[in-house]
Amino acid sequence: MNNLDTFHESLKYIQQKTINILNTVTRKDIEKINRWFFKANRIFVYGAGRSGLVSKAFAIRLVHLGFQTFVIGETIGAPVKKGDLVCIVSGSGETIPAVMTAEIAKNLGATLMVVTGKQHSRITKFADIAIVLAADCTEKERKRFAPLGTLFEASAWIFLDGIIAELMKNKKETEESMRSRHATLELP
Amino acid sequence: MNNLDTFHESLKYIQQKTINILNTVTRKDIEKINRWFFKANRIFVYGAGRSGLVSKAFAIRLVHLGFQTFVIGETIGAPVKKGDLVCIVSGSGETIPAVMTAEIAKNLGATLMVVTGKQHSRITKFADIAIVLAADCTEKERKRFAPLGTLFEASAWIFLDGIIAELMKNKKETEESMRSRHATLELP
Amino acid sequence: MNNLDTFHESLKYIQQKTINILNTVTRKDIEKINRWFFKANRIFVYGAGRSGLVSKAFAIRLVHLGFQTFVIGETIGAPVKKGDLVCIVSGSGETIPAVMTAEIAKNLGATLMVVTGKQHSRITKFADIAIVLAADCTEKERKRFAPLGTLFEASAWIFLDGIIAELMKNKKETEESMRSRHATLELP
Amino acid sequence: MNNLDTFHESLKYIQQKTINILNTVTRKDIEKINRWFFKANRIFVYGAGRSGLVSKAFAIRLVHLGFQTFVIGETIGAPVKKGDLVCIVSGSGETIPAVMTAEIAKNLGATLMVVTGKQHSRITKFADIAIVLAADCTEKERKRFAPLGTLFEASAWIFLDGIIAELMKNKKETEESMRSRHATLELP
Repeated sequence: MNNLDTFHESLKYIQQKTINILNTVTRKDIEKINRWFFKANRIFVYGAGRSGLVSKAFAIRLVHLGFQTFVIGETIGAPVKKGDLVCIVSGSGETIPAVMTAEIAKNLGATLMVVTGKQHSRITKFADIAIVLAADCTEKERKRFAPLGTLFEASAWIFLDGIIAELMKNKKETEESMRSRHATLELP
Repeated sequence: MNNLDTFHESLKYIQQKTINILNTVTRKDIEKINRWFFKANRIFVYGAGRSGLVSKAFAIRLVHLGFQTFVIGETIGAPVKKGDLVCIVSGSGETIPAVMTAEIAKNLGATLMVVTGKQHSRITKFADIAIVLAADCTEKERKRFAPLGTLFEASAWIFLDGIIAELMKNKKETEESMRSRHATLELP
Repeated sequence: MNNLDTFHESLKYIQQKTINILNTVTRKDIEKINRWFFKANRIFVYGAGRSGLVSKAFAIRLVHLGFQTFVIGETIGAPVKKGDLVCIVSGSGETIPAVMTAEIAKNLGATLMVVTGKQHSRITKFADIAIVLAADCTEKERKRFAPLGTLFEASAWIFLDGIIAELMKNKKETEESMRSRHATLELP
Repeated sequence: MNNLDTFHESLKYIQQKTINILNTVTRKDIEKINRWFFKANRIFVYGAGRSGLVSKAFAIRLVHLGFQTFVIGETIGAPVKKGDLVCIVSGSGETIPAVMTAEIAKNLGATLMVVTGKQHSRITKFADIAIVLAADCTEKERKRFAPLGTLFEASAWIFLDGIIAELMKNKKETEESMRSRHATLELP
C-alpha cells in the first residue's frame, strides 16, 4: 500500500479488517437472533457514543421493517418487560451505562443481545447472545488507520445491516413496504 | 420588589407574567384540543431549541397517558398521515423548521395545533388551532428578568401540563397507571 | 376553585405550589452558586427524562451567556475534570444514571450542584450544594393536578431561569449579547 | 454466492459495493477537504435520519482531534459564520431540512462540504465541494441486500473515518491524544 496516501490506506485497512471481522459470524448465531426478533414483543436498543449511533441506525431500519422499537434514553420510551428483546452495542463491553443497562434488562426478564468488541468483558456476562466483532491487528497500524473503536463500529454497522437484510427476507418485507413506514417529516 | 436580589425578582416576574399569560386561555379552546386528542390516531410533537424541549416534556406525559406519540426528528419515527394530530411549539412562530413542519403536516392531511407567542406569525396561518401565549410587558423589565423566549417557554411548559391533567381526567388515568408506562431503563 | 375545570384548576395548582416551593430558596445558596459559575472552567449538565429536558433548557441559556457548556450524553462532549462544575437535575434523587453521574463527577474532582425534589436521597450525598425543591401537598390533589414529577420539574425550570437572570446581571450580559450567541441554523 | 444465506450475502454485497463506491474518491478532493478543515474556525455537521447518525459519528471524532465542532440541532449550538465549515450528509441530496441547512449555511458565508449519493441533486448546487458516493447496481440485488440508503450510509461512515485518519496524521494527533479528549461521563 506504499504509494497510497493516508486517506486511501485507511479506507483499505478499515474495509479489509471489517471483512475479516465479519467472516467470523456464524450462521447459527444469525438463526438464533432471527428467532428472537420474531418472538419478541418489542425491541429496545442502546449504546453510548459512536456505538449508540450504530444502535440507532439499526433501530431506524427495525421501524421500517415494522418491529415495535424503542431507543433507550430517547424521549419516547416504554418499560422493558419479560418478552422484550434488548440489543446493546458496546465496543469495550465495559462502558458503565451499557453494562448497567444490560444488568437492569436481565433483571427485568428481557432477552439480551450484545454486540461487542471484547469476548471477556463485563457486559457479555449478562448476554443471552454476544456477537463478538474483534480483529487481529498490529497495534501500530490500527492506531494510525483506525483509531479507538473505529474497526468495531464499522463492523457493527454493517453486521446490523446484514441482520436487517435477513429479517427483511423472513418477514417478507420489501424496500417499498419499508419506505412506507419511513418518517416523512424528516426534521432530524 | 426593591429589596429583592435579581434571582428572586426574576422568579417573581416570571411567575406573575406566566399567571397573566395563562389566564387568557379559554375553556372553549381546551375543549376543542381535548376532542382532537381523543379523535387522533397518533400524536406528533415538534419544536426547535427550548420550545423543542417543552414539546418533548409534553410527549413524555402523553406516552404516560397511553397516547401513541412521536417526537418529529428523533430516531423512532413514523410517517404523518390524515387522522394524526401534530402539535408544534414555537415562540416566535417564525422559526424556519417549525414553519416548514407545520406546512408539511397540513399538506399530509394532519390536524395542526400550534402553541406560540405571536398571534400574527407565519406558523399560525397553517394552524387548525393556535394557542397564543403572550404577555403585556415593559421591554426593559422583561429583558432583565426573562430574556429571549423565557416567558413563553415557562408558560408553554405549564400550559401543556394543564392539558395533561385535563386529558388524564377524561381518559380516566391515574398517577399509578401513568407510572406503569414510564420507561424503566431511564438512561437518557 | 370549585367552578374551574380540571385544566384551569391544574394551572392554578401548579402555579401556586411552584411559588411556595421557590420561596424556600435562600439568597445564600444563590450567591454560592453564582460564585461557582464564575470560578468554573466549564459547565456540564445532566438529567434523565423530563429533568433532562430541564437541564438542557438551562444549558442553552448558559451558552447564550457565553459559558462553555456541555450536555452529558450528547454527541459533542468533553472529559469532566477538576475545576469543572457539574449540574444534575433529578426529581427523585434516585434515578440510577443521575446518581452514577454524580458519583463519577465527584471522583473526577468536579464541583457538583444538584437540583432535586428530595432532601434525603442518594444523589444529595455527593453534592457540594443541593437545591431541594419540594412542596407540602395533599397527595390526592397533587396526583390529580400535577402527577409524577410535575411540580418539581416546573419549579426546577423556573429556578434555573432565575439563576440565568442572576448570572446575566453579574456577567453584564444583555438580551442582545445573548441573542448573538444563539444558534442560527436552528434545525433541532 | 449461491450457498450463502441472506445475512452473509448481504454482508458481501455491502462490502463489495462500498469498496467500489469509495474507489472513486480522488486525492485532489481529499487535499481540498483537508485544507478547509485546517482553515476553518469551527466545524458544523448536519444530517437527517441515518445520514444524521453518520454525521454525528464524524463529529465525535473531530472533537477527539481537537476541532471545535457542533452538531446542528443539538442542545449546544452556536451561530454559523463566515470562516466556518459546514459538512452535510444527505443520501438523496433532496431531504428538505438538509437542503435548507445548506442554503442557510451558504447565505451566512460558511464553506459547505456535502457528502451525498446523488450528483445532480438540490443540495449539490449549494456545495463548495460535493463528494458523491454512488454505486452502479442492479436494482433487484440492491433492494434485497441493501435496501433504501444502506450503501450510501455505510460508504459515508467509512469515507469520513478515512478523512479522520488523514486529519489525524496532518494534525500530528495520536490515538492517545484523541482518547484524552474523549468524554468520560459517557451517559449517552
